[in-house]
Amino acid sequence: MTPGAASTELPAQPTLRAKRLRLHTQHQAVVIMRTDCHVCRSEGLASRSQVLVSSGGQEVQATLFQIEGDDLLAIDQIALTETAWQLLRLEEGAAVTVTHAPTLESLAGVRRRIYGNRLDADAVGSIVKDVAARRYTDVHLAAFLTASAAMPLDDAETVDLTAAMVDVGERLRWDSPIVVDKHCIGGLPGNRTTPLVVAIVAAHGLVIPKTSSRAITSPAGTADAMETLAPVDLDIVTLRRVVEAEGGCVAWGGAMHLSPADDIFVRIERELDVDTEGQLIASVLSKKIAAGSTHVVIDIPVGPTAKVRSEASARHLADRISAVATRFGLSATCLLTDGSQPVGRGIGPALEALDVLAVLRGAPDAPDDLRRRAATLAGAALEIGGKVAKGEGAAAALETIADGLAWKKFQAICEAQGGMRTPPKATKIYSLIAPRAGRIVHINNRKLSRLAKLAGAPEAKAAGVYMNVSLGQEINKGQVMLDIHAESLGELAYALEYARRSPDIIEVELSS
Amino acid sequence: MTPGAASTELPAQPTLRAKRLRLHTQHQAVVIMRTDCHVCRSEGLASRSQVLVSSGGQEVQATLFQIEGDDLLAIDQIALTETAWQLLRLEEGAAVTVTHAPTLESLAGVRRRIYGNRLDADAVGSIVKDVAARRYTDVHLAAFLTASAAMPLDDAETVDLTAAMVDVGERLRWDSPIVVDKHCIGGLPGNRTTPLVVAIVAAHGLVIPKTSSRAITSPAGTADAMETLAPVDLDIVTLRRVVEAEGGCVAWGGAMHLSPADDIFVRIERELDVDTEGQLIASVLSKKIAAGSTHVVIDIPVGPTAKVRSEASARHLADRISAVATRFGLSATCLLTDGSQPVGRGIGPALEALDVLAVLRGAPDAPDDLRRRAATLAGAALEIGGKVAKGEGAAAALETIADGLAWKKFQAICEAQGGMRTPPKATKIYSLIAPRAGRIVHINNRKLSRLAKLAGAPEAKAAGVYMNVSLGQEINKGQVMLDIHAESLGELAYALEYARRSPDIIEVELSS
Repeated sequence: MTPGAASTELPAQPTLRAKRLRLHTQHQAVVIMRTDCHVCRSEGLASRSQVLVSSGGQEVQATLFQIEGDDLLAIDQIALTETAWQLLRLEEGAAVTVTHAPTLESLAGVRRRIYGNRLDADAVGSIVKDVAARRYTDVHLAAFLTASAAMPLDDAETVDLTAAMVDVGERLRWDSPIVVDKHCIGGLPGNRTTPLVVAIVAAHGLVIPKTSSRAITSPAGTADAMETLAPVDLDIVTLRRVVEAEGGCVAWGGAMHLSPADDIFVRIERELDVDTEGQLIASVLSKKIAAGSTHVVIDIPVGPTAKVRSEASARHLADRISAVATRFGLSATCLLTDGSQPVGRGIGPALEALDVLAVLRGAPDAPDDLRRRAATLAGAALEIGGKVAKGEGAAAALETIADGLAWKKFQAICEAQGGMRTPPKATKIYSLIAPRAGRIVHINNRKLSRLAKLAGAPEAKAAGVYMNVSLGQEINKGQVMLDIHAESLGELAYALEYARRSPDIIEVELSS
Repeated sequence: MTPGAASTELPAQPTLRAKRLRLHTQHQAVVIMRTDCHVCRSEGLASRSQVLVSSGGQEVQATLFQIEGDDLLAIDQIALTETAWQLLRLEEGAAVTVTHAPTLESLAGVRRRIYGNRLDADAVGSIVKDVAARRYTDVHLAAFLTASAAMPLDDAETVDLTAAMVDVGERLRWDSPIVVDKHCIGGLPGNRTTPLVVAIVAAHGLVIPKTSSRAITSPAGTADAMETLAPVDLDIVTLRRVVEAEGGCVAWGGAMHLSPADDIFVRIERELDVDTEGQLIASVLSKKIAAGSTHVVIDIPVGPTAKVRSEASARHLADRISAVATRFGLSATCLLTDGSQPVGRGIGPALEALDVLAVLRGAPDAPDDLRRRAATLAGAALEIGGKVAKGEGAAAALETIADGLAWKKFQAICEAQGGMRTPPKATKIYSLIAPRAGRIVHINNRKLSRLAKLAGAPEAKAAGVYMNVSLGQEINKGQVMLDIHAESLGELAYALEYARRSPDIIEVELSS
């Protein structure tokens, strides 16, 4: 069609002035504009419209919320939440343009997948690219993940998804022919073996550039615990320097942009509480491939309240992980471990770090389960890395702890990362005692995690739970079962109130 | 477990002061709190936590966003978006408590459904109850709808879903043994038959208490168009009075709380662009059952750019609708109609209202297609309502228009609803002309809707598109094909720019 009346010049793309809100909305980029703003009116934008926000050559897709009145915004202002602000690298008052977000072609693939059609590598690639560029809304993300659960990803789709997730992120490369990594399929509070494994493996001369995550829903991620011992926010240059000097590191991986789509998928999966094997495999392996690993040891704790609940499903998972890893030239060794109770005694960043230190220093009260788990995992890494003969890894690892070499290496790594720190101690500590004598027959990992989080972990570094008992132990009435550590009375009170409501956190069976 | 040290009194549930933001987030209730606020710290709340917000006996579940600094909020304030504010019926500064939202038991049903298990009535009922109470996040909603598309709802699930959606809302009851309703399975711009059908049917003495929706993604809903002719925001008492006096009404259904879960599902389905038959049937029938109808005429437009694209799928849909309706004692009559082009000449609230007035007044330029469609639908209603013999309905309906009785009844209904209004006229009108001579071979309904929306519809009541041509018509070069109506130059410019980019809104084939 051709305009019939006198031709009109289109107005130049109108701009708005950026206002930083310092509002945190996680992965969801949100912008706020006035309902009566000229851009909303001329573009026909409504609340919850998906918009494309551009400034200085950067662009981000965001969800629009509209506001009435001029309390927050002048008519020509646009407020941006932190996610949008950071992605656009804005300065206060910068000129911003806003249009309808373009149609996402990749959603056609999601819809096909919902209706039962398998996706090819191109379709998977387009979806992951749009996810990593944060163009998918929660609704789109949930639909893709649900469709991949309703009809599970097959091997080809899992390989394609893994490859696509690697492709959209950064990729580290190392000179060494063998680069070792380790990973734990989560769900076990206090399972803080990583710093120990890195110290042992690096002490043997293997390269282990470990990147770890912060807690999303748990009381502490490895990065949170390690941060009480040394800086973990390393950029890639520093990380390289540390690894070249010491062979290993324990850094926060969030700033490295390794498999960025994974972080987005994981948050939605947690909200949905749906774990699918295909997504899990792509999640774990894409991070390891992007980190440049050649060999990875994977810890799969199995237990009634752990993530993997039966040995059969653990074995099935292990087989699929190994098969997919092979397609990328990555050698994966999966170890099934005891997931029936917490590991070590501390749950929370500083308390877990203190367990790690106790093991490294050979303290008399060091948690033996943590030491043995770490030795098993490090031992497997030493074996696949060719440092010791098959079957001799765990003993060699224990030896490395006992002779102080792991402790020496750990200190060197902490110094290289920016200087060793002393973990903080909580100011409020409260003991929960056994209501009666008996035997401990069940420990609920999920509820212990919740208790530690209510006490303030992981934001309050010193907060958490310190276990005084373990599964199978005979205890007396009035004996301390655990201590709650908090940094504020309010948080302590909330944790206590939860403990009162939850008599099944630790179950005691009357002795006969 | 029992606290061991001296017993502590828990602090009273801490409160925050409510601040109204006038921020519009659609169905998603959002609250904003300071990152450093005592409630966030003691409850362990993080951004995107689901929280339960309570005040004065009301409660609402909301998504938490956290803000840094004191520009927006004092440390003891909480900001609420409109949805949350309205649901809590707050006043500025009211005391509000915030806790973690309770676990949603009904999500277990969603997860079972994802993994391929059918749901029973109880599980469906729990899901719909939580949806209607706005406890589901977008992620949860998308997962449920995706699961119901990946493995389509069977007849039993569709019946259970319909029943559950009726149960969670209000339900109107009427004294009359026959209560007529009509519905159009959307997708056809300008298909504004409802005011005509209501006027004709009520003129024949049948009871037709029609509630309609506003536009969600279309340029005008029936309520938007009707609002330019009379007030439509009727409460239930007024609606009853109008129907008792005149036999019919055309009211906005949004305030009636009929099948409130439907409004939430529909928004997510649109965002996902996934339509499932089961959801569609439950959506349509739950509203009709809740409105107290005994007989419903359903218009199913079929065409390449309409919602239903083939006669086969229309017939399948019609059969399922009738079967499910029967389970609720509702008689559904489905009519397959031409969905290949817009109906009438106007697209947009006031322009569609003017078409309706032209038909009622018997104006010489009144759109004949709109008149005939309305007569077909009203005729079917007259037949199933027992007012005329089978096969004579359409003729009787046309007669009621021709003799002015429908017009008289429509005026009476408008007066009863609060007084008849004159639709507004646009101040900016721009004609799009044919680029060449030829025959109109295709009209893209979806793109016409987009054009009308860019021109400002439905917010700008007078805005929209006025069609001067129809499918199959021979036209000359330079002949006006359509007029764009706008209330502002900015909106006109955006519509024009879209028209320039979209030569396929109306396709002209060269005459041979």
